[in-house]
Amino acid sequence: MKSVFIIVCVCMFIVTGGWAKEPPVSEDTEACLECHYTVYPGILEDWKKSRMSRVTPNEALKKPPIERRISVDKIPDSLGKTVVGCAECHTLNAAKHTDSFDHNGYQIHVVVSPEDCATCHPTERKEYDQNLMAHAYGNLMNNAVYQSLTESVNDTPVFSKGNLAYHRANGKTDADSCLFCHGTQVKKTGTVNKETDFGEMSFPILSGWPNQGVGRINPDGSKGCCTACHPRHRFDIAMARKPYTCSECHKGPDVPAYPAYAVSKHGNIFASRSDTGSWNFEAVPWTVGKDFKAPTCAVCHVSLLISDDGVTLAKRTHRMNDRIYQRLFGLVYAHPHPISADTTVIRNSAGLPLPTDLTGEPATTYLIHRDEQEKRKKTLQQVCLACHSAGWVQGHFARLENTIRTTNAATLAATRMLLYAWDKGIAHGPAAKDSIFNETIEKMWVEQWLFYANSTRIASAMAGADYGVFANGRWYLSKNIQKMQDWIKLMETK
Amino acid sequence: MKSVFIIVCVCMFIVTGGWAKEPPVSEDTEACLECHYTVYPGILEDWKKSRMSRVTPNEALKKPPIERRISVDKIPDSLGKTVVGCAECHTLNAAKHTDSFDHNGYQIHVVVSPEDCATCHPTERKEYDQNLMAHAYGNLMNNAVYQSLTESVNDTPVFSKGNLAYHRANGKTDADSCLFCHGTQVKKTGTVNKETDFGEMSFPILSGWPNQGVGRINPDGSKGCCTACHPRHRFDIAMARKPYTCSECHKGPDVPAYPAYAVSKHGNIFASRSDTGSWNFEAVPWTVGKDFKAPTCAVCHVSLLISDDGVTLAKRTHRMNDRIYQRLFGLVYAHPHPISADTTVIRNSAGLPLPTDLTGEPATTYLIHRDEQEKRKKTLQQVCLACHSAGWVQGHFARLENTIRTTNAATLAATRMLLYAWDKGIAHGPAAKDSIFNETIEKMWVEQWLFYANSTRIASAMAGADYGVFANGRWYLSKNIQKMQDWIKLMETK
Amino acid sequence: MKSVFIIVCVCMFIVTGGWAKEPPVSEDTEACLECHYTVYPGILEDWKKSRMSRVTPNEALKKPPIERRISVDKIPDSLGKTVVGCAECHTLNAAKHTDSFDHNGYQIHVVVSPEDCATCHPTERKEYDQNLMAHAYGNLMNNAVYQSLTESVNDTPVFSKGNLAYHRANGKTDADSCLFCHGTQVKKTGTVNKETDFGEMSFPILSGWPNQGVGRINPDGSKGCCTACHPRHRFDIAMARKPYTCSECHKGPDVPAYPAYAVSKHGNIFASRSDTGSWNFEAVPWTVGKDFKAPTCAVCHVSLLISDDGVTLAKRTHRMNDRIYQRLFGLVYAHPHPISADTTVIRNSAGLPLPTDLTGEPATTYLIHRDEQEKRKKTLQQVCLACHSAGWVQGHFARLENTIRTTNAATLAATRMLLYAWDKGIAHGPAAKDSIFNETIEKMWVEQWLFYANSTRIASAMAGADYGVFANGRWYLSKNIQKMQDWIKLMETK
Repeated sequence: MKSVFIIVCVCMFIVTGGWAKEPPVSEDTEACLECHYTVYPGILEDWKKSRMSRVTPNEALKKPPIERRISVDKIPDSLGKTVVGCAECHTLNAAKHTDSFDHNGYQIHVVVSPEDCATCHPTERKEYDQNLMAHAYGNLMNNAVYQSLTESVNDTPVFSKGNLAYHRANGKTDADSCLFCHGTQVKKTGTVNKETDFGEMSFPILSGWPNQGVGRINPDGSKGCCTACHPRHRFDIAMARKPYTCSECHKGPDVPAYPAYAVSKHGNIFASRSDTGSWNFEAVPWTVGKDFKAPTCAVCHVSLLISDDGVTLAKRTHRMNDRIYQRLFGLVYAHPHPISADTTVIRNSAGLPLPTDLTGEPATTYLIHRDEQEKRKKTLQQVCLACHSAGWVQGHFARLENTIRTTNAATLAATRMLLYAWDKGIAHGPAAKDSIFNETIEKMWVEQWLFYANSTRIASAMAGADYGVFANGRWYLSKNIQKMQDWIKLMETK
Repeated sequence: MKSVFIIVCVCMFIVTGGWAKEPPVSEDTEACLECHYTVYPGILEDWKKSRMSRVTPNEALKKPPIERRISVDKIPDSLGKTVVGCAECHTLNAAKHTDSFDHNGYQIHVVVSPEDCATCHPTERKEYDQNLMAHAYGNLMNNAVYQSLTESVNDTPVFSKGNLAYHRANGKTDADSCLFCHGTQVKKTGTVNKETDFGEMSFPILSGWPNQGVGRINPDGSKGCCTACHPRHRFDIAMARKPYTCSECHKGPDVPAYPAYAVSKHGNIFASRSDTGSWNFEAVPWTVGKDFKAPTCAVCHVSLLISDDGVTLAKRTHRMNDRIYQRLFGLVYAHPHPISADTTVIRNSAGLPLPTDLTGEPATTYLIHRDEQEKRKKTLQQVCLACHSAGWVQGHFARLENTIRTTNAATLAATRMLLYAWDKGIAHGPAAKDSIFNETIEKMWVEQWLFYANSTRIASAMAGADYGVFANGRWYLSKNIQKMQDWIKLMETK
Repeated sequence: MKSVFIIVCVCMFIVTGGWAKEPPVSEDTEACLECHYTVYPGILEDWKKSRMSRVTPNEALKKPPIERRISVDKIPDSLGKTVVGCAECHTLNAAKHTDSFDHNGYQIHVVVSPEDCATCHPTERKEYDQNLMAHAYGNLMNNAVYQSLTESVNDTPVFSKGNLAYHRANGKTDADSCLFCHGTQVKKTGTVNKETDFGEMSFPILSGWPNQGVGRINPDGSKGCCTACHPRHRFDIAMARKPYTCSECHKGPDVPAYPAYAVSKHGNIFASRSDTGSWNFEAVPWTVGKDFKAPTCAVCHVSLLISDDGVTLAKRTHRMNDRIYQRLFGLVYAHPHPISADTTVIRNSAGLPLPTDLTGEPATTYLIHRDEQEKRKKTLQQVCLACHSAGWVQGHFARLENTIRTTNAATLAATRMLLYAWDKGIAHGPAAKDSIFNETIEKMWVEQWLFYANSTRIASAMAGADYGVFANGRWYLSKNIQKMQDWIKLMETK
């Protein structure tokens, strides 16, 4: 750790111009710091540790392209010569921010958006916007089928005189549930005057706030939230590269990437060795075997990787899809990745906004073609091949393909049982104009694909198969089928 | 890490008087060490690393009050000048300890109690005693309703000739189950002679031992166990400040504070950054942003916090209630915090020892008033405000209030279903003089509030909402209601 | 960490002969490195960090026996003078490896086996082979009862016209499921020509590959996989000593050793303190209290432990059984450890290959005797006694014995319910020539012993009882009994 620290210090020292010169802070930011040193001390301390507070954009641009952390070609004159402080971000594009408010003579907005970050990071912003996660709000809330699912989860039950009914969940309930990860819609709903240490001040009231979901709809209309992975106010590349960041939203039984990773050999090496001082989570580019010994989520899906002799193994991408050829996340079946990051455009053969039919046939028009799948698979496998033989990699992916096929089959069996139950009138589906998510057998069906098939596939993909059997995988896939059958039997003869 | 180590070493060096002077160990402790260096080497090594073995109480008292780790004003002469070693703790208050025994001429007790620790830490001992956890044994075992719940969990089933019966669990079963965390009653039940390397010796036989539960009833009659959080024999403040300590008892689905924290932004920052050498878990007082970058459990609920310019943000308290305004843990509904740490005194309107009625109305006489709630909430929010804006904090707590309301409503729906089942005679409750915890629908009802409502609330409180949806939250809250309804349907028509 | 690093460096420096001399690499390995530096850079970097790449076997033999990491008395001349590189392992015993292939004039095999490692580590290889894990493939796949269980988990359901059937799982499904941990059978199935950067080359095609399961059947006929715990290509003792390695296969509800450990005091101390630079996971021998402050899995079950004054507390063993007196893992009841590591030889009184009768009586002929149990228990307890008093240890194990008794009783109740269901014809067992694992009540029965009884016992054994109540323990043991009873009631009256 010490050596890393020394190297970082020396670099900072050189970058920032050596002795004597403090990193130049803008006058506007100085004005912010004056009061906020005492008002939000934790934020200030965090920022002071960040690269943002130590390196000016102009200096950052002097690095060789492969070492750069910013993707803009030229920095606006007003921003290049001072470090990136409070004012630089919280006053940018003021006119676009409906949450802007007058604060001691400055037009401040609380919610810094990807559009603001794009001033220095335009490539990352553009890529991210073509990513499923940027559209996580709309993909859930503007899809009638998924919306019906969220209602079945979030609505409040009321039981009275033997009858069960539901009250529609309010926005705050959606916000503590699905939208916590998907992102809320943050809107200014009014203004409030508050007595502060510095006299009365006026602040905007925001609905859907706080939230750091990946598809947050910001007051400037932009989608996404960079601090979901690069948390304020250090904006750390190291954190985004550690699996804990992804685990915030990828831990539940629906998408257990982190728990599966944790029991994989990769996860074990990360947990056992990454604290030993020899790993470097800050380096750009990131050198396989030298900076890290086992992949984290970012290694496979995001980061710019090179080998020790300088060969680029993978380009940086914030359009994570570039290294995802197959959507393991079944809706309701695993399927080729959607073409459009906005998945509300998809229609299956029944006209529903789903990537497959209820019986599994993919809505091919809206999904990437076999060629594109092969291309993305190859891009991903370049990462594997840094440490594994071609035979190993081939065997791994052949096993995964089989997992996809067999778990889709287990989903099909469950779906047919549900169709049978609807047909027999013991459960009520679309034909009865009823929700497809509100009855017990429907919930069992959801768990079949959303929990058990997803878990089994993700465990296979990560080679973390302890998770894929008894933790939430094949054991439950097969037990659930039996329970569905019993439910049908009992309800038929009731 | 190195720099922290150097600082700690330098401090120790100064505190302990510089060169040449070994920390003074009492003669009695020297006598212990002589044999026990070989008998329990692990304990000795651990103690040698502790602050106890390096700093005498008199030296500790010389620190400025805000830096002190002891709360006594004056140390008894016999204890002040030597470090705190074996004899200092294990021979204290010998007369009060019913487990005291003669050991090479010393009156030794195995179980060091909070009353012993109070010799130097009286404030902490007193505060802790006014804390729910200190009363965890009695609050469970001396409450007829909860006692019935533990029986339904721990009793051993026997199935014979088509009939199911239960044998009452013995003390050891309670000890491996509920009392592991709640604490056992440790009693001397006899004496045994053992052949040792130093000849035959006599030792007390203890029942309920070993145990380090937070509400342990000790042989001197005191309640609690300091080593639950400050484990032997290092008695580390750093460990108590890390979330792993709390996770020992706050990980299950009934009270999943740790898993919810782990998927929160706070938990992510702790996991990603606290091993980097820049965090200091030993400092007293504890400086926001400098010593730590994200809160752990102790930050919000226990520790003395200051900002870098010396302003106290929160006072140290071992009465954790001081920063808990609402009891999220539903029994069976979330409710204002109880006034008395001994909750067996509570009676609801039906005369039951429960903080709310079965239909949710709080037993207000026994619960803190709205004003006290607001006071505690403000104390807690001072911590949030070190890093978050007032609008952020307000939004967070407004969302939590909504979570409490809606999960209480989901508990009410389940309770009404249970009342319906009792009413219809398909399950047997108090009117039938039957346990309210032993039938399937009753167990489903318990899971509604104990697992799913608690999990949803705790996830919302921690902003770790991935946990609150599919991991053990709203998905199960709504599915469970459907399963209860099916159970009623099937049993009604059986 | 730094100090450990310095010590390691200094040791390496001395061991490797001081200044100027690079560790001697064989000509054959030099040939490998030439191309593979660019082909698999990650592997190379990892190996370069390993002790294998820095110390020749002859130098390793010069250490005092207690510090040795190799167990051979004399190294073959051809291997002693150079470090252990690619060629040393991947060309060993070429004739025995059916996966050997010609590769630039060398006979290479991809799958290095325990038989290869035994060249320098014969004792470890021999011990491991007498360990249940070495036989994990056969113990599962060659036992008709367990084989029927894996089929019930892995077979693919098909639902058609109201009827449910199953298609037999293929090898790849077994490989992503049970065999991921148990180990696959790795076989050469053919040869493939591939275009590479160095022209066309021929490679073997392997089935069951990749896999690192503990009981893998290797192409040379040997059983096991050293890299399951000492992962390639660093072959690290530190990793095998950390609990994350064991957690790869011991995390699910069937055998939750890691989750139970994680909530134990031991697990807490490991998580809280092992990253502080004062723990040494590399030292051989391993000193209690100095190198580590709390046990990991390896401390209790594998490692060579001494006290600071040089007394050996436990000998190293790779026959983990040596420190396991009781099999907590119920099949279907917890029982004394099997005598033979190949458990397919066991027959209960009904002639089934199970260690107990269905009603719990142990198949004593095949299980270790009470005396051997006591001997192993004492060996294990020597480790406990390094830090805990005799009374503490005795109390802990008495509590565990009670846990075993009561959980076996809860399994017996469930079994009798299953026998009742079979008898009444509402479920179909052996008498009806039906699988005992395919119906809902049978799956509930499996969960009773495989999930809930196992979890309760393992939590008690690790003193991680938060796991043993609500996480997956006694709550479910008792709830499951009620659900089984309801199932019987409903099916009887259907």
